[in-house]
Amino acid sequence: MCSVISRVKPVQRALASTLRLRTNADGLNYAAAQSRRFCPGFITGAQPLWVTSRSYCARIATTDGLLFRQLFEVESSTYTYLLADADTKEAVIIDPVLETIDRDLKFVSELGLKLTVAVNTHCHADHITSTGLMKKRLAGLKSAISKFSGASADIHLKEGDKIPFGRHSLTVRETPGHTDGCITLVTGDQSMAFTGDALLIRGCGRTDFQQGCAKRLYQSIQEKIYTLPDHCLIYPAHDYLGQTVSTVGEERKFNPRLTKSMEEFVKIMNNLNLPKPKKIDISVPANLVCGLHHV
Amino acid sequence: MCSVISRVKPVQRALASTLRLRTNADGLNYAAAQSRRFCPGFITGAQPLWVTSRSYCARIATTDGLLFRQLFEVESSTYTYLLADADTKEAVIIDPVLETIDRDLKFVSELGLKLTVAVNTHCHADHITSTGLMKKRLAGLKSAISKFSGASADIHLKEGDKIPFGRHSLTVRETPGHTDGCITLVTGDQSMAFTGDALLIRGCGRTDFQQGCAKRLYQSIQEKIYTLPDHCLIYPAHDYLGQTVSTVGEERKFNPRLTKSMEEFVKIMNNLNLPKPKKIDISVPANLVCGLHHV
Repeated sequence: MCSVISRVKPVQRALASTLRLRTNADGLNYAAAQSRRFCPGFITGAQPLWVTSRSYCARIATTDGLLFRQLFEVESSTYTYLLADADTKEAVIIDPVLETIDRDLKFVSELGLKLTVAVNTHCHADHITSTGLMKKRLAGLKSAISKFSGASADIHLKEGDKIPFGRHSLTVRETPGHTDGCITLVTGDQSMAFTGDALLIRGCGRTDFQQGCAKRLYQSIQEKIYTLPDHCLIYPAHDYLGQTVSTVGEERKFNPRLTKSMEEFVKIMNNLNLPKPKKIDISVPANLVCGLHHV
Repeated sequence: MCSVISRVKPVQRALASTLRLRTNADGLNYAAAQSRRFCPGFITGAQPLWVTSRSYCARIATTDGLLFRQLFEVESSTYTYLLADADTKEAVIIDPVLETIDRDLKFVSELGLKLTVAVNTHCHADHITSTGLMKKRLAGLKSAISKFSGASADIHLKEGDKIPFGRHSLTVRETPGHTDGCITLVTGDQSMAFTGDALLIRGCGRTDFQQGCAKRLYQSIQEKIYTLPDHCLIYPAHDYLGQTVSTVGEERKFNPRLTKSMEEFVKIMNNLNLPKPKKIDISVPANLVCGLHHV
């Protein structure tokens, strides 16, 4: 990993302060990316076993045929999510972390998945993404991130874009406030939302760096996340208390910050006095280029 | 917590070597426990929101009406599980940890659950259970553990016993080998198995202390866990790599230890040369009495 970090040029580190690095010249629009997202045969090995993590709810119908796994990286307390179509084996990974790339790719291989898109919910400040290195290891894999992130990637996402994988898809909702380029990814049936650092379980992302704006975050959550059904499951990018999931309804009711008025929320966020993330000086420049220089 | 630890008497520490402390004189058989497991009104506060963690599988039918949450304690890498009936609100907690009791009880309160049984899959050596303290905080709550654990508890479980919560239940399968008193708890539809330290994701519990026996563990897994359906989800008591769930089918195929013959497995287990768990000298004596002296 040190070698990865050292490959981030100093000039890019300087540019981190603006988070507006030029977009990758090879960046594809999504339709174009879709047309060439497979590299047949890059998955080898064991037959997949399609049955996976499941839990239950009382009121919502089940979408069968969707493989789902939540994975955790302990140093940065980051959740990585893997979703796949049980039939076509097409898969999407959300917020993969450099430190756990071997674990994640081993799992992809064991289950026989065709990983087509590695998407980041935003340009992370606390860890380095593995999307760049993952692209090197899996031919045909495309990186994706918000067009407002300032980061280079194969696919630049905007409001309403869909990331399909087999008969399933994730729809982009722009939820800026923690950063300009934060997105929430929602399953087609609105039963699951991957909220990145916008909405956390009983918390939310900080707004004191990387274009952070408490008002925008409040609006994003109210307008783009709290408008999802109460039963929609909230899967955040981080949790620091060992919690794994919440729901829109729970957060509407119990989130200590978001149950406040916008004015109170802004006041809370402006007085958090959090320490600077330890890895921000290496993570942000690296994540502007998918965690590797020149992807 | 220090005060809790200090309350474990030295004599009990000495007895830890045998793990055969007398059973609690107040221990109830399960039928009796069932008849008085509620303390009406001990839950107050917010209305519950019943929709919860969910993921998907391709082949198994969904059991609606079961609330399920996986929770993590980072110091010992322990998973705690909370299951509840969505209608009656009756709930069971599996392997709760002393350090996270406030988080767990806050969650129980927020969701309006009636926690009736706190069950340990075995007498843990790496952390102190919160069942004793939880009983002090929630009137009517009963502790449960295997009758072969040597630990005191309200309910002593044996093969085939059921722990009902509303219209759901967990069935006990004895899976000794890591300790004499290890159990696996299986949902009524055999879609989820809480395997404690018997079967871990791509691993298994160690067998070099607390009556550990590699042969018994191998037999337990083969006869009591691998006989469950391939799609049955495996929820272990620990994971050290950020993995959250597996399936019987996956473990049968990919578990590096359990895909071996018994002879090879025993050889592997006898040559792990693992360090002694840091907390064993305080955890085991404490856990023999539900984590608190004189429950």
